[in-house]
Amino acid sequence: MKKIDIIGQGNVGSHLYKAFAGKADVVNVNSRTLSELRFDADLYIIAVSDNAIANVAERIAGTVRNGSLVAHTSGTMTIDILDGHDFRIGVFYPLQTFSKNVNLDYQKIPIFIEAQNESDLKELSSIAALISRNVVRMDSERRKDLHIASVLSCNFVNHLWTLADKYLEEKGIDFTLLRPLIEETVRKLEHCSPFESQTGPAVRHDSKTIRSHTDRLSDHPEILKLYKDLTDSIELNHP
Amino acid sequence: MKKIDIIGQGNVGSHLYKAFAGKADVVNVNSRTLSELRFDADLYIIAVSDNAIANVAERIAGTVRNGSLVAHTSGTMTIDILDGHDFRIGVFYPLQTFSKNVNLDYQKIPIFIEAQNESDLKELSSIAALISRNVVRMDSERRKDLHIASVLSCNFVNHLWTLADKYLEEKGIDFTLLRPLIEETVRKLEHCSPFESQTGPAVRHDSKTIRSHTDRLSDHPEILKLYKDLTDSIELNHP
Repeated sequence: MKKIDIIGQGNVGSHLYKAFAGKADVVNVNSRTLSELRFDADLYIIAVSDNAIANVAERIAGTVRNGSLVAHTSGTMTIDILDGHDFRIGVFYPLQTFSKNVNLDYQKIPIFIEAQNESDLKELSSIAALISRNVVRMDSERRKDLHIASVLSCNFVNHLWTLADKYLEEKGIDFTLLRPLIEETVRKLEHCSPFESQTGPAVRHDSKTIRSHTDRLSDHPEILKLYKDLTDSIELNHP
Repeated sequence: MKKIDIIGQGNVGSHLYKAFAGKADVVNVNSRTLSELRFDADLYIIAVSDNAIANVAERIAGTVRNGSLVAHTSGTMTIDILDGHDFRIGVFYPLQTFSKNVNLDYQKIPIFIEAQNESDLKELSSIAALISRNVVRMDSERRKDLHIASVLSCNFVNHLWTLADKYLEEKGIDFTLLRPLIEETVRKLEHCSPFESQTGPAVRHDSKTIRSHTDRLSDHPEILKLYKDLTDSIELNHP
């Protein structure tokens, strides 16, 4: 069994630890104390916030065997943030939205790997394949673009649901009534591109409905601003 | 079997027609010619664009039996757009995103009904129950609020996916890599509110990542604007 030390016990670290349990000889190391850190793991995965990666790398450098393979899990940081130690370095980025207490089917989660030579890529790939059916090689620059797209597609989307939920709550309407609509919106992605499946007043250039909505949102300036910007953007993309 | 005339052969009309097939004696009437329109249907459902509803109502008024029950399917129009004829009037609003050629499980789609008296509400309710397990009474004002929330939760969300798709395509990255992330973002709604499950740089107040993204988006002003506005809105809601 591969020996894997996962450093960091936040959302990413704890989900990775669970995913590897039983498939590798894995420990989950507290990033502050580094107690339990092993000398001879096959892979060290640094799963801490972007700002803390360089610091953790420096602190483990004194403890782990020279030439160890060390990867971080960040979508935005380049591989070379791990430079400057007697490490082989890499990236092990699972593209997912992690929340504590929500279980995940890891097999479906794409894992994006990067390393500095073919043999390290193979090593990362075979370890990633223990937990995912979807292992993809991607360099740091493209990973940044992917991360931006994931912020649009996931974080911002979830925030629009937050605003809708808040708005409906004020009006005494249950947000869960929207769940079938939301699920269908996602399901349509299986059949056609989001561009093709766009619906709603903006793509129809239905200015009457748009005006009725913006009038009604006049006492919700924060939602109104996003409503206008997103409507403009839809109209621009669907002239 | 109930006799139902669905007037309008666009997305909503054709999906409703399919949903009722076999469960009611249903015809789908072309809204321009009105050929096949029956004199004595139990319910006339006007499934045309908002702007055309009043006109269709006027045109069928001469043909159908006095006192017929006539409903429209709009999320935004009030019930009284059907006023002024010898009709009993109502609303029959299925909250869903309809695309031609994508089949739907109608049983899950909430149908919002409105009428002017209890017996008409019961009639609409029993007809809606033929095709949906989720029939909800809702007045015109609350239906407008629901419609606004559905634009935020579905149309705008789909547009963010369109922008992500376009951006990734430029970079040579496959949008379908984001599908597991998107599906998980939806699935989390089963477990907690969207507010609770918010993730990403904005909710972490990770200004370094946000700046790296906005720098990178400087040649995509349209996405950049939405990126900034949505980030501001997340930060405002999660101080």
